[in-house]
Amino acid sequence: MERPRHQGMAKNTYMRWRLPLVCLLWEVAMIVLFGVFVRFGPEADAHWEEEKREMNLTSDIENDFYFRYPSFQDVHVMIFVGFGFLMMFLKRYGFGAVGFNFLLAAFGIQWALLMQGWFHSFKSGKILIGVENLINADFCVGSVCIAFGAILGKTSPIQLLVMTLFQVTLFAVNEYILLNLLHVRDAGGSMTIHTFGAYFGLTVTRILYRPNLEQSKDKQGSVYHSDLFAMIGTLYLWMYWPSFNSAISEHGDAQHRAAINTYCSLAACVLTTMAFSSMLQKKGKLDMVHIQNATLAGGVAVGTSAEMMLTPYGSLIVGFICGIVSTVGYVYLTPFLESRLHIQDTCGIHNLHAMPGLIGGIVGAITAAAATEDIYGKEGFIKAFDFTGSYRMRTASVQGGFQAAGIVVSLLMAFAGGALVGAILKLPVWGDPAAENCFEDDIYWEVPEDEESDVYHMHNPNKPASP
Amino acid sequence: MERPRHQGMAKNTYMRWRLPLVCLLWEVAMIVLFGVFVRFGPEADAHWEEEKREMNLTSDIENDFYFRYPSFQDVHVMIFVGFGFLMMFLKRYGFGAVGFNFLLAAFGIQWALLMQGWFHSFKSGKILIGVENLINADFCVGSVCIAFGAILGKTSPIQLLVMTLFQVTLFAVNEYILLNLLHVRDAGGSMTIHTFGAYFGLTVTRILYRPNLEQSKDKQGSVYHSDLFAMIGTLYLWMYWPSFNSAISEHGDAQHRAAINTYCSLAACVLTTMAFSSMLQKKGKLDMVHIQNATLAGGVAVGTSAEMMLTPYGSLIVGFICGIVSTVGYVYLTPFLESRLHIQDTCGIHNLHAMPGLIGGIVGAITAAAATEDIYGKEGFIKAFDFTGSYRMRTASVQGGFQAAGIVVSLLMAFAGGALVGAILKLPVWGDPAAENCFEDDIYWEVPEDEESDVYHMHNPNKPASP
Amino acid sequence: MERPRHQGMAKNTYMRWRLPLVCLLWEVAMIVLFGVFVRFGPEADAHWEEEKREMNLTSDIENDFYFRYPSFQDVHVMIFVGFGFLMMFLKRYGFGAVGFNFLLAAFGIQWALLMQGWFHSFKSGKILIGVENLINADFCVGSVCIAFGAILGKTSPIQLLVMTLFQVTLFAVNEYILLNLLHVRDAGGSMTIHTFGAYFGLTVTRILYRPNLEQSKDKQGSVYHSDLFAMIGTLYLWMYWPSFNSAISEHGDAQHRAAINTYCSLAACVLTTMAFSSMLQKKGKLDMVHIQNATLAGGVAVGTSAEMMLTPYGSLIVGFICGIVSTVGYVYLTPFLESRLHIQDTCGIHNLHAMPGLIGGIVGAITAAAATEDIYGKEGFIKAFDFTGSYRMRTASVQGGFQAAGIVVSLLMAFAGGALVGAILKLPVWGDPAAENCFEDDIYWEVPEDEESDVYHMHNPNKPASP
Repeated sequence: MERPRHQGMAKNTYMRWRLPLVCLLWEVAMIVLFGVFVRFGPEADAHWEEEKREMNLTSDIENDFYFRYPSFQDVHVMIFVGFGFLMMFLKRYGFGAVGFNFLLAAFGIQWALLMQGWFHSFKSGKILIGVENLINADFCVGSVCIAFGAILGKTSPIQLLVMTLFQVTLFAVNEYILLNLLHVRDAGGSMTIHTFGAYFGLTVTRILYRPNLEQSKDKQGSVYHSDLFAMIGTLYLWMYWPSFNSAISEHGDAQHRAAINTYCSLAACVLTTMAFSSMLQKKGKLDMVHIQNATLAGGVAVGTSAEMMLTPYGSLIVGFICGIVSTVGYVYLTPFLESRLHIQDTCGIHNLHAMPGLIGGIVGAITAAAATEDIYGKEGFIKAFDFTGSYRMRTASVQGGFQAAGIVVSLLMAFAGGALVGAILKLPVWGDPAAENCFEDDIYWEVPEDEESDVYHMHNPNKPASP
Repeated sequence: MERPRHQGMAKNTYMRWRLPLVCLLWEVAMIVLFGVFVRFGPEADAHWEEEKREMNLTSDIENDFYFRYPSFQDVHVMIFVGFGFLMMFLKRYGFGAVGFNFLLAAFGIQWALLMQGWFHSFKSGKILIGVENLINADFCVGSVCIAFGAILGKTSPIQLLVMTLFQVTLFAVNEYILLNLLHVRDAGGSMTIHTFGAYFGLTVTRILYRPNLEQSKDKQGSVYHSDLFAMIGTLYLWMYWPSFNSAISEHGDAQHRAAINTYCSLAACVLTTMAFSSMLQKKGKLDMVHIQNATLAGGVAVGTSAEMMLTPYGSLIVGFICGIVSTVGYVYLTPFLESRLHIQDTCGIHNLHAMPGLIGGIVGAITAAAATEDIYGKEGFIKAFDFTGSYRMRTASVQGGFQAAGIVVSLLMAFAGGALVGAILKLPVWGDPAAENCFEDDIYWEVPEDEESDVYHMHNPNKPASP
Repeated sequence: MERPRHQGMAKNTYMRWRLPLVCLLWEVAMIVLFGVFVRFGPEADAHWEEEKREMNLTSDIENDFYFRYPSFQDVHVMIFVGFGFLMMFLKRYGFGAVGFNFLLAAFGIQWALLMQGWFHSFKSGKILIGVENLINADFCVGSVCIAFGAILGKTSPIQLLVMTLFQVTLFAVNEYILLNLLHVRDAGGSMTIHTFGAYFGLTVTRILYRPNLEQSKDKQGSVYHSDLFAMIGTLYLWMYWPSFNSAISEHGDAQHRAAINTYCSLAACVLTTMAFSSMLQKKGKLDMVHIQNATLAGGVAVGTSAEMMLTPYGSLIVGFICGIVSTVGYVYLTPFLESRLHIQDTCGIHNLHAMPGLIGGIVGAITAAAATEDIYGKEGFIKAFDFTGSYRMRTASVQGGFQAAGIVVSLLMAFAGGALVGAILKLPVWGDPAAENCFEDDIYWEVPEDEESDVYHMHNPNKPASP
């Protein structure tokens, strides 16, 4: 019952010693580094009662856990079910989509806790973690999941782990430059997560260009059921995106506002996606690829500005535009990128994350530059952009300029980092599949015999299975 | 590989210009109306620091966001995944079920924010929104999703958008009459959402009666996998229903109580559904249609009374009864409605929403009429029914009477509104499918080639695909 | 189109009167018992305003609802979607997996509210319930879902209800001994839920040993789609496990800490599971069975210690070990248990719950014994282990000893209880399937005709369906 395969050109995809070695060694390294560096932050430590007295808090409900834990869980679902299932649209790559996403994210969150911890939560030799660190680690891994979308089906699990190691590192550096050095606002990560993650992934897939990929073309499409599974991913990303964009905003109005703006942007995005999906197809039928992806562009594109006074109608406008841009991208740009620029982008992350991410950065810069004390209130203005300490004198328009600089830095980091990592992944030691074996679970997974053939036998008991 | 179809009677279902036009124009209208009317409420506005001082709040945790956001997200999942996947049971209408539900809900929540805003959150010329408005918009759209269940598979996406536009409008009017004029309690919407939504949808499908629907009878059933997808919808509705019924109740005990009552009612409902599903079938086997739907009737039926002192055993009794009523409805009433009254109710919303919604309204009226200061406490009694201001002197039994009046008003609005909208949808301009093309994704969606045929080829490489 | 079946040996699996009778009678009993005993606790009762004054609470946000409701909903999803879908991996038992899990859990939570209520929330003749009771009822049912995993596919729904009745009862007794008599800590239930539930289930399946089970061997595997459905269950269990282990911990730091520890343990567990899944297979391919199950062992194994100062690196170590133990168990132990000890463990709960549960109990005992006032702070130490009242003088090492005793008690209760219940279930009156009909939905469910055959007909219209 084995399927025929072109064994002549097959690469060595034997994972038995390489994958376990990488997993075990790296996990041991995590344990050692966590042992040396990671401790509970004051709100998760058993000394909390003393902390509470010191900070003059009267109730346990003031623990940051209760402000952020529900959002954390929503973000967690987006990373593991959202991305994992969204990438399940390929007909024979469901195990790889959800399983490899699981693997890289589980490793990535540990490494991100360390990398982001060193930059942001390092106090007297220890990284002190709490629920906000968990969210940030998930965010960081989100950018890896995005990049994974570009190379989906064409890489080995070891390559994915290597990419995760490097990308998380570079993410943390880029994030540090943006948030700490440029003092940029980016709560939902239009720049740090989407722009960086997407252009990083696109650069990697460009360098890993496979000229003979059409050999596995028959497996690059979806089937009816795989499209339905992918819709689970789409919907969880869409529904929980308000939590994503508000998860690490300031307590109170900022979280509240970020959720509302994202809700509005996403709603508008669905309508323009449907409109253009039908309009750009001769028969006027809707295309599941667009519905699965472009409907999410509105969430990406308010990632920077959602916590600002973008206003509900401003959010609708952003969502309106991004649904169009993203759908048009799927129809015209993805084929162009592949044929002309040799960028093979399996999931079309250029349309879902790269362009909307850039738009999100720009919208954020404009919204910041347009901020006034009138709109925000005197206190609200300072709080919204954290114009305290050495940033006391920064004006809205200067902030807008720094926001714009943040986009450029993210792009440069993505291109440089993607080129470096792409070159490393090109080394012939990682066990990637041959061109004709791409988009096929059989290479790295024990795949059960097909149900269809069973059923076929049941209904046609007199016929042999393989004549 | 195109499937043969009776082209002779085919209607014009070409969506290429009509659907984009409606989507884009309406979304532009939303942007304009939001621009004129919608602003952040005080708890989401950047002036929140000043607001906090004025209201004498000492902590950001007092922001309504932290009371309601987790419930909001649960409700959001119910609308998009719950309803979307529940309707996926048809063998070849999965894209339409989840995709059209996505489309109408995304439009509906925007229009609902406006309509409900004008009635309930209008202050000095602006609609001020916060998380409670988002929940209410989702609730309103829930009633459209219910009506969609009756006409599932028989309408074009444009018809669904037109219905959404009208139904949201009428919902808001009906809600205003009930909550503001009659001063009725209906936190979980037994009357406003379920009774109204279901009888509205049933009236619409009656008017759109298709005498030749048996032409697509082979597609009106489920297959093994589509039933499993539908169970995702069922379970998310079932699990999150306590959040639904408690989402907009008063802070504190009312939210807490509503969740407990709903939890109890739903648990009882599962057992009686299973009992009657087995009992009403000759072979004694369980029927997935009942499990997918009737198990939810308990949540519908405590929609009005969950926040009242219904008590856990009262909830069990309501759930007990509704599991039976709903299952019996599927077995005996649905076929009767179709053959005698020409009501073609694809999902059986009469059994899941209409009858349990009516029961819910009646249970609410009785529970209200039976309320005493002894049971609720002096303050609790006033708070539970908001007997303040001009309602200061209202007694429990009078409240019960008004609750009953609310049922009647909802029914009248549903019949009148459904008749009007049904008549509009009957116009031959909306691109609805011909009778033999109902319940078929192929009409409005790009459907990928079937996996089964691929696999068939793989396993039988020597055989031609279509002999 | 009926499938051929060996009717000769078929048992009487006719459920028409037996199942409805059990469901209805038991539900009536629940109503009566709830009517006599169950009332709202003070935080869900309409007298809450008075309560608030008495307890000197200034805000509704201090209601326990807001501390625990989001965690409750996550736990609820784990029980109904997590367990229900995880068990969907069998190719033809999806209805049974999710449907019977639904049935037994819906009954179990009601009975658990009563049983646990009598032991823990009984005041002046009434059981006073709130959100914490709902969580505990879900927890209790979790142990039944675990036991269900061992006998999956081999039992009738009545047997499952009977098992639920007894297991919930014994669970409550065991929990009372551990928490109240031994004063043991077990917030995430390594002992009370996992060790007890798994060894209970293994004992039951040992007693129900079926020598001819290989007759249904062809149905005991998975197919491609059923494995993807199962991954939904896996991921929801994995993602929400931090909520599970923190749901009933003390407010503040304990809940916060439990979530972080669980997050870390689960992340490490994924990497060692992947490593050993590949390493233990000749071709080095990953096995979905391991990914679906062993990745969760890390959550089980910190069930006792997650709320303690286990520290993030301690959690990583526990997860590291349990991923290995669990995967090795699937490869070597499960076949051994079946062939030598006649323990037929359908889902491999020995590897996912039994062994990791034991490890969890031991880790908890060690962590407790190693606790010092230095690590926890003076107040934190007392609060973490509730060393108040008559336990004022208990030391950490004595606590460690009692924790260890808790493991032994749970094991004894599981073996004794499992033997008793197994013997009851062996009675020939419950309608269990014959050996050749195991793992087959057709016995207890109306199963729709297969899609595959339909499609086959569509594409091959000239061929008869069953030659």
